Amino acid sequence: MHSPPALTAIPVRVSAALALALMAATAVRAAPATAPETVAVQLRDAAMAGHDIAYSWVSELTTRFGPRPAGSPNEQQAAAWAADKLKALGFENVRVETFPITAWVRGTESGQLVAPATQPLAVAALGESPPTPPGGLEGDVVIFPTLADLQAAPPGSLAGRIAMIAQRTVRAQNGAGYSAAVPARTDGPGVAAQRGAIGFLLRSVGTDSHRLAHTGTTRYVEGRVPLPAFALSAPDADQVERIAALGQTVRVRLFSGASYVRDAHSQNVIAEVRGRERPQEVVLLGAHLDSWDQGTGAIDDGAGTAIIAAAAKLIRDLPHRPRRTVRVVLFGSEEIAQPVPPGGAFGGHAYADGHRAELAGHVLAGESDLGSDRVYSLALPAAVGHGEFATTLLRVLTPIGVLGAERPPEDAGTDIGPSVEAGVPAFELSQDAMRYFDIHHTADDTLDKIDRAQLDQNVAAWAALVWLAADSEVDFRH
Amino acid sequence: MHSPPALTAIPVRVSAALALALMAATAVRAAPATAPETVAVQLRDAAMAGHDIAYSWVSELTTRFGPRPAGSPNEQQAAAWAADKLKALGFENVRVETFPITAWVRGTESGQLVAPATQPLAVAALGESPPTPPGGLEGDVVIFPTLADLQAAPPGSLAGRIAMIAQRTVRAQNGAGYSAAVPARTDGPGVAAQRGAIGFLLRSVGTDSHRLAHTGTTRYVEGRVPLPAFALSAPDADQVERIAALGQTVRVRLFSGASYVRDAHSQNVIAEVRGRERPQEVVLLGAHLDSWDQGTGAIDDGAGTAIIAAAAKLIRDLPHRPRRTVRVVLFGSEEIAQPVPPGGAFGGHAYADGHRAELAGHVLAGESDLGSDRVYSLALPAAVGHGEFATTLLRVLTPIGVLGAERPPEDAGTDIGPSVEAGVPAFELSQDAMRYFDIHHTADDTLDKIDRAQLDQNVAAWAALVWLAADSEVDFRH
Repeated sequence: MHSPPALTAIPVRVSAALALALMAATAVRAAPATAPETVAVQLRDAAMAGHDIAYSWVSELTTRFGPRPAGSPNEQQAAAWAADKLKALGFENVRVETFPITAWVRGTESGQLVAPATQPLAVAALGESPPTPPGGLEGDVVIFPTLADLQAAPPGSLAGRIAMIAQRTVRAQNGAGYSAAVPARTDGPGVAAQRGAIGFLLRSVGTDSHRLAHTGTTRYVEGRVPLPAFALSAPDADQVERIAALGQTVRVRLFSGASYVRDAHSQNVIAEVRGRERPQEVVLLGAHLDSWDQGTGAIDDGAGTAIIAAAAKLIRDLPHRPRRTVRVVLFGSEEIAQPVPPGGAFGGHAYADGHRAELAGHVLAGESDLGSDRVYSLALPAAVGHGEFATTLLRVLTPIGVLGAERPPEDAGTDIGPSVEAGVPAFELSQDAMRYFDIHHTADDTLDKIDRAQLDQNVAAWAALVWLAADSEVDFRH
Repeated sequence: MHSPPALTAIPVRVSAALALALMAATAVRAAPATAPETVAVQLRDAAMAGHDIAYSWVSELTTRFGPRPAGSPNEQQAAAWAADKLKALGFENVRVETFPITAWVRGTESGQLVAPATQPLAVAALGESPPTPPGGLEGDVVIFPTLADLQAAPPGSLAGRIAMIAQRTVRAQNGAGYSAAVPARTDGPGVAAQRGAIGFLLRSVGTDSHRLAHTGTTRYVEGRVPLPAFALSAPDADQVERIAALGQTVRVRLFSGASYVRDAHSQNVIAEVRGRERPQEVVLLGAHLDSWDQGTGAIDDGAGTAIIAAAAKLIRDLPHRPRRTVRVVLFGSEEIAQPVPPGGAFGGHAYADGHRAELAGHVLAGESDLGSDRVYSLALPAAVGHGEFATTLLRVLTPIGVLGAERPPEDAGTDIGPSVEAGVPAFELSQDAMRYFDIHHTADDTLDKIDRAQLDQNVAAWAALVWLAADSEVDFRH
């Protein structure tokens, strides 16, 4: 009755072709004599030629399971699927490691202007924020341009009111605009509560102008998020500001039926290509399987899981293994990560805690969690600075548009963060984030936003870097 | 506490400056001797220079009243505001003409995939569609690529199922893609009902890829829309198709709490610049004040009302009136227009019915209802073909990027439609619709989507054309 668009299962076709090509090459040059840089170039070119692994992975993941909120059945089913898929792709030591979390479940939610005219507002409850009273909450809105302005308000000055931070997010290629704006989201509810507010509104931390609010976590204060807290879409924030500019009081009604599941669990999925000479030395590739609940987590972070799985699969299919072990970790529960317990139990912590004895053997770690657009810049641990490893790697990556960075990574990622804190050296393959924060943490995070050619370029960069690191004896720590 | 963005009241500054400039010019050339073409050029240039009338109009309209569904208090308040504003701008014979309608009110609504995995769906009930049962409705989805495929399904073949039309909307500058796709929306529910379906789903008639479904009217069959009917956002329609392509049955749960208000009313707002020689001869400028309920009706059709009001205001402020009367009509209840009663009572019908005796004196009519992007093409009644009026007008409009069309208008608009059917000649200033159907009939129809320079170019084209027509003795009928 209908010719549907093609959705292919993950093929092994191209990987097999690559393996054959490499075997043919090695027939001439002899296997161990193939220079690692030559292999890196071949991996890069195979990925750039458009193998299907990464796109098929993210397509199947987001189509079968849709949203994968931390602790949800969808996240658990996706983890089981990923483990099966990694086994089918030929990875070793595939396992699922569960850990307990408190899950947060979005309920029905709504916002509306009730004065001066009735108008619907596009809102999204912020992650882990408590529900409103069953009948909702209503109050006049006090607008603050920035978090600093809210912090400057005297205690008690917001009694019975709803505080709103109207801060804009600057579009920046390296995501710096997000870093600058996000404290308004994480800290705003706590600061507003201290000043007597009954609710918190935030202009979405995002760079788009659609009626889709950007969610994201808020920070626990004494074990809980202190206020019902909501993001407004950018056009709604504009509207509230314009009404206030007409000299009129903006009165808003908010409802959230959010809830918590205290005995939930999440899980990390782990898979390896065991090293041929130094298997106890690990190059760690991280990304997260959970997503926010409104979209299907395609760019955040289905793409990241696809990129690292596809890069590792290309390495796995080589005729000989790298010297060191390549370990893929698909983390769970990244989105509700908190800096401290009780919200602090997330995949990154669970991994570092559960593998603490092995961390000394983790020679390098990287995380892919900034969407699916191209890698444009590279950052390596200070120890390898501008040395031979960096020079070789840049020879391989420059042709696909990757700049050598001037400095080591600053923030390598949430999931590998606890491992990096424990001393594991980190690299970054920095992605172009110009459009990432248009979509991030909204219902719009869906498969159609992925540019397949750019996704493949990520795989190329990851495969080349990880191969070179894993087949080397380079010490990234000292 | 906050420096808000500026929202200025509608200024008379530039219009006054224009009037002074024209008076200065006429001081040299003597008032009646100023060639109409010269005045048209001056009107055009004043508009292009960026007067504030149009943008301020649409900003204030959409900010004060937000959504203005047909028959709603917001629509009525907006009409009262518009009448006051037109009086304040110096128009004559300002009046509000009410007419009865059945209003349609969107209720709470939701959609979700219930199998193979639970996933939320971004849906919007189609205009005038009935509510679901209180507990919602659930069924397996049968996907049809086009309306024709649904029409080919045998009677009874959809018993207990939900029919979905997956037809795409082609992006086209002249809006032809909408015209091609919209029968799936207007006729789909009736056709599905005849085949036994319990519900109807439509891939949004739209060209974007956001999680915002496009609403719009569906056609009455025997006095009612026969099925609960919903648009799916494009990414959701993709998702449903991909799941089906995995060979899995797609099961969906839908809820709509829509309702009807049988004794509602809407209204047309009318204002004039009376002609100096032939006041009974009318050049009619139309646009509609009502909007869909999810956005704030900025591009559909706040912009149109702003364009025609601003163009007429520039003419009103000239030192001498045009020969003929310029009449602005801000129609009500355009969005729920139906081709036949009982849904057939809308602003365009009410106007043609109420003013039937005057229609013989309506020398020309045009409607602005395709957003706020630039005018790129012109269509004139066949009677003036490539004659002197057309030649003069094109000399004025070519410098601002308007092509002369090869043929007379095909569909001059919904609101002036009944008047045109009664013999009133129509013109078209065709707008670039490349991005219009990204936004049209969604929550994204908000002020930020308006490009101010393009809005002003519309005013320039309208002011020049309307002035030339109104100050002439051209017969557009014969």
